[in-house]
Amino acid sequence: MRIQRLREQLFKTTLTGYLVTNIHNIYYLTGFLDVPNPYLALFIPLHADPILFTPPLSYAAAQELARGCVIQQVTPENAVTTLITTLQEHQSIGFDDLTIALYLLLCSKLPSHTFTQKQDLMVSLRRIKDEQEIAFIRQAAKLTDQGAIAGCEFVTEGVTEYEVAAEIEYAMRRRGSEGVAFETVVASGPRSAFPHGLATDRVLKRGDAVVMDLGAVVSGYRCDITRTVIIGSPSRQQKKILGIVMEAHDLALDAMQSNVSAREIDAIARQYITQQGFGEKFIHSLGHGVGLDVHEAPFLSARSSDILEVGNIVTDEPGIYVSTFGARIEDTVLITKDTAEKLTRAPYYLP
Amino acid sequence: MRIQRLREQLFKTTLTGYLVTNIHNIYYLTGFLDVPNPYLALFIPLHADPILFTPPLSYAAAQELARGCVIQQVTPENAVTTLITTLQEHQSIGFDDLTIALYLLLCSKLPSHTFTQKQDLMVSLRRIKDEQEIAFIRQAAKLTDQGAIAGCEFVTEGVTEYEVAAEIEYAMRRRGSEGVAFETVVASGPRSAFPHGLATDRVLKRGDAVVMDLGAVVSGYRCDITRTVIIGSPSRQQKKILGIVMEAHDLALDAMQSNVSAREIDAIARQYITQQGFGEKFIHSLGHGVGLDVHEAPFLSARSSDILEVGNIVTDEPGIYVSTFGARIEDTVLITKDTAEKLTRAPYYLP
Repeated sequence: MRIQRLREQLFKTTLTGYLVTNIHNIYYLTGFLDVPNPYLALFIPLHADPILFTPPLSYAAAQELARGCVIQQVTPENAVTTLITTLQEHQSIGFDDLTIALYLLLCSKLPSHTFTQKQDLMVSLRRIKDEQEIAFIRQAAKLTDQGAIAGCEFVTEGVTEYEVAAEIEYAMRRRGSEGVAFETVVASGPRSAFPHGLATDRVLKRGDAVVMDLGAVVSGYRCDITRTVIIGSPSRQQKKILGIVMEAHDLALDAMQSNVSAREIDAIARQYITQQGFGEKFIHSLGHGVGLDVHEAPFLSARSSDILEVGNIVTDEPGIYVSTFGARIEDTVLITKDTAEKLTRAPYYLP
Repeated sequence: MRIQRLREQLFKTTLTGYLVTNIHNIYYLTGFLDVPNPYLALFIPLHADPILFTPPLSYAAAQELARGCVIQQVTPENAVTTLITTLQEHQSIGFDDLTIALYLLLCSKLPSHTFTQKQDLMVSLRRIKDEQEIAFIRQAAKLTDQGAIAGCEFVTEGVTEYEVAAEIEYAMRRRGSEGVAFETVVASGPRSAFPHGLATDRVLKRGDAVVMDLGAVVSGYRCDITRTVIIGSPSRQQKKILGIVMEAHDLALDAMQSNVSAREIDAIARQYITQQGFGEKFIHSLGHGVGLDVHEAPFLSARSSDILEVGNIVTDEPGIYVSTFGARIEDTVLITKDTAEKLTRAPYYLP
């Protein structure tokens, strides 16, 4: 079904086949999710059954899980020659991604062939989520909420950032999350000014802002949430900045729907924050698509040319970072025809 | 210091500079560990200071952490042109890894330059751990032991595989592990026959073998352990196979020391298992190096040409997988002059 949709895209090009090596793309197309392996590849000829090349350790699982594929077992010794033999009769091959080593080898062994990177074919399929994908991300959102609540409830003076991360991850994992969607951010005190501040052994203090950015995974699908809490009584500046971030988040959320430009949504949040005097302190884009990858199309930024579509799942995550602290509030959101539905629903714990 | 050792390798080649984009290699050389970013790169000219190109969000952290580098901030708009300007005067450039897109762009913009993938330069440095690296992995091993013990103690009929994984990961994380070294394997009952069986919602039963393969991370350095426990009384076959795996593990460990071929160590475990009648059921290699990556050089396999050296840190992980269940026992081990030191020390919980 998804392979059929990829073929429809292929027919619009001059390509005679498409080679897939990204494990998320292979999973998306076949239902088979493997650990990273240099010998795993999927080849989709324009007019024949797809062939999934799997190493011996994955062969049994691939046979059970990969839908509508010929499963071909390869070893480190014969993987490249097997692939070259298969590609021989297909002159014009597109691919999602290849290692440089394999790319150069294919070009040299098949010198009359052309190999062209065509990531956009997969991006255009994956950016619109189908019902099954939305159901997985809904389930991931529920676990993500539990992680956010566990973190917000646990935060107190005297504990370390990594202890907060441990509680967050445990709350999601023991309810069935497949690990974490990305490395959990727990950034406290002055570290909250770093948007990517991973959890360290810093001990939380009264007056700290604590930014927690986290996500669960269900059937390979990710979710993404951020909450910022203050330990003890917030300062006037903390309260003010958190209020501005919350309002920017809500303004953007209210404007999200299909057929609106992603750049426009970013601009709505950015203009509000700028009016409030913190435009230069909102140092990242408003959001990004979420799915099998935690950052994928569409992108909500000042540079984006994406248009929101029904079935996009994106984040809404404005932030303000001053020298002494930072605040960010984020939800994962499903774009529908006339509105946007928040999938993450944990409380905001605003001061 | 590490950059100096890379330069010594470079002087033996005809390269005039080396471009690094792998985040673990950048961390190894500079001390700066970032989240994955397409605009992060390190260029080491043969005769001038290294230049670290960082996106705006990483600039402050890079300035604080990257040792002995010129830090150059780049934006998505100017990253490629800045890189090309820098590379202009260096004709013959080696690199660790590049995306195909960037490789083709560099080749087209600098047509008289040569760009050659030279991963072996980094591999040869990273395979021998220095004192600081050994200290980090020792610390990771202690946390890994705590994870293994938590898993073995928690395993009981009625709980799910992912609940076991949650306990394992929580035990490591709340003591300071930076997440997991790799996705935790909890493979129970018939699933224990899959060496890569990640935790699912399968409920553990009496008589199950449960294979747990896990690891902690400290300062970016990983560790790796596997324990296999039986719920309730083991069958005769389970007891026999676990005994064979344990003995193969010990025979290999006893033989490990510097200046021995890695293939020979693999053969010692494999021959013993073969003599016991299970040679074809030991379906993977004996072990691999561990460091910033969980799989790195040297490799202990039947195909390996690696020779063990003082300062290698490797796994010793024989396994036997029959149709109804599997068993694997693994430790992470430091190679010294005349012997090998087990870094992971959790009990084996043998029946």
